Amino acid sequence: MISSDESSCDGSCGSCSEHGTCTDPKAQDKTPTRLGRIKHKIVVGSGKGGVGKSTVTVNLAVALKRRGYSVGILDADITGPNIPKLLGIDDRRLTSGPEGIEPAVAEGIKVVSMALLLEDRDAAVVWRGPMKMAAIKQFLEGVNWGVLDFMLVDLPPGTSDEPISVIQLLPDLEGAIVVTTPQELALLDSRKAINMFLAMNVPLIGIVENMSGLRCPHCGQVIELFKVDGGKNAAGDMGAHFLGAVPLEADIGALGDRGVTFTGRETVAGRAFEKIVSEVLMRIGVPRAVDAILTEA
Amino acid sequence: MISSDESSCDGSCGSCSEHGTCTDPKAQDKTPTRLGRIKHKIVVGSGKGGVGKSTVTVNLAVALKRRGYSVGILDADITGPNIPKLLGIDDRRLTSGPEGIEPAVAEGIKVVSMALLLEDRDAAVVWRGPMKMAAIKQFLEGVNWGVLDFMLVDLPPGTSDEPISVIQLLPDLEGAIVVTTPQELALLDSRKAINMFLAMNVPLIGIVENMSGLRCPHCGQVIELFKVDGGKNAAGDMGAHFLGAVPLEADIGALGDRGVTFTGRETVAGRAFEKIVSEVLMRIGVPRAVDAILTEA
Repeated sequence: MISSDESSCDGSCGSCSEHGTCTDPKAQDKTPTRLGRIKHKIVVGSGKGGVGKSTVTVNLAVALKRRGYSVGILDADITGPNIPKLLGIDDRRLTSGPEGIEPAVAEGIKVVSMALLLEDRDAAVVWRGPMKMAAIKQFLEGVNWGVLDFMLVDLPPGTSDEPISVIQLLPDLEGAIVVTTPQELALLDSRKAINMFLAMNVPLIGIVENMSGLRCPHCGQVIELFKVDGGKNAAGDMGAHFLGAVPLEADIGALGDRGVTFTGRETVAGRAFEKIVSEVLMRIGVPRAVDAILTEA
Repeated sequence: MISSDESSCDGSCGSCSEHGTCTDPKAQDKTPTRLGRIKHKIVVGSGKGGVGKSTVTVNLAVALKRRGYSVGILDADITGPNIPKLLGIDDRRLTSGPEGIEPAVAEGIKVVSMALLLEDRDAAVVWRGPMKMAAIKQFLEGVNWGVLDFMLVDLPPGTSDEPISVIQLLPDLEGAIVVTTPQELALLDSRKAINMFLAMNVPLIGIVENMSGLRCPHCGQVIELFKVDGGKNAAGDMGAHFLGAVPLEADIGALGDRGVTFTGRETVAGRAFEKIVSEVLMRIGVPRAVDAILTEA
């Protein structure tokens, strides 16, 4: 709590009149809230579904973890939660402890998702906006996240309740990563997502172009169904940073179905991902030297 | 209005105490509401985005139109409306007439979509649930749909506000078509959508498996990234009707980007679609003879 005499701040930010607007670093260091112990909060969004947003989120998380950072994923897609399946932990269930809900852990990453609460994995969560908002609030504030370097929030498609709620509940959001595929139809919706983030004062970390081109694994020729550079061009048009492109590879879908990530693999997609993670770290100002040391460790 | 003496029904259903629950065919014939003049109302949904739901909707509409039926499409994806782009009319705007909002017309199909109202196609519609509900209500009741054989409602991904609103606003819904891709991840969400429809007493017309397999257009070999039969197997598991599979073809994405439908083309996907439409008509009880006559006409 900040009074006119700053030294009297007792760290009880929750009851302070300046809560939410206080910029005093001394006070923030004492912040007892759980979310204050998470350093970088990043949302991963896209206007359109099916562009591989959740795949990008889990691979980004694994790549950060491999570099030595502590990472959590909040799956904010309440009605279509896919993160646990992609990490191979869809048979686990969240537990409750003295500190609140305990996240599940996969590959060293803390995970909270609606999929980890449903008794039947095929059960439909037929909820309107306010119920989804309540769930997201609980997932943020009622979970024992501990101290984390990164929290990645996987958003559902669209520009409605979930992104609005997350952005409102996380005033110290570091920024947004927008995932798109190169087709015009996906870009149409991705540009809407970018405009939503800009309108809500969320810094845009950059754009990832997923499913960028496909070569036939048999004859090596390019298949034109999957374009390239659409995301890169859209980034240029909108003055946004281009983080990189991840090509389609024959086993990505199957790996996801089996709950296996592909970051760090010696494939084009695996290497592309490592580059994207370096770009993200540079964009949010994590010093290169620290990043290099952690990578070597 | 129904009184104890049934002959006194004057057709003023809106002010009748039995409005919404009345099952008297005499009264229903007189229903003066606009929606009463639309014979078959069908929703096209999927738990997951990016499975080609909108592509299936427009091709289904075009195939019905080619058989002589009058068709309208309500694009209920308020924050990510793609129907106009797929029909090549994303530069049009809805107009207002003495009978209310006038739908746009593409390939003889009446279309209402949020995309036809936005001044800037990249503008984000950052709306919570109640605003989306109000828009959908307006799109249903405030539009001069006229007399239609079919209204296809294209739902956004998920099991939240838009499907709930549409189902509540259309008590005489004929049924739902669920579109999926064969990957397990998509099936996970599709099963949720099916369970939502069942829980809300919406009859399931059947499942369409989209992006079902890909052959390299150069060497003809099957590319394993894209599985087959996942949707067919899920239909079997859930006791649902399987309407058919549409394979990926090299130019489908590009056709969509250019606003060109592929129904009726002499390709595997085009022919697959004609079969799916026949299945749908059979499932909803449109007599085969009538269908055949209309096809020949």
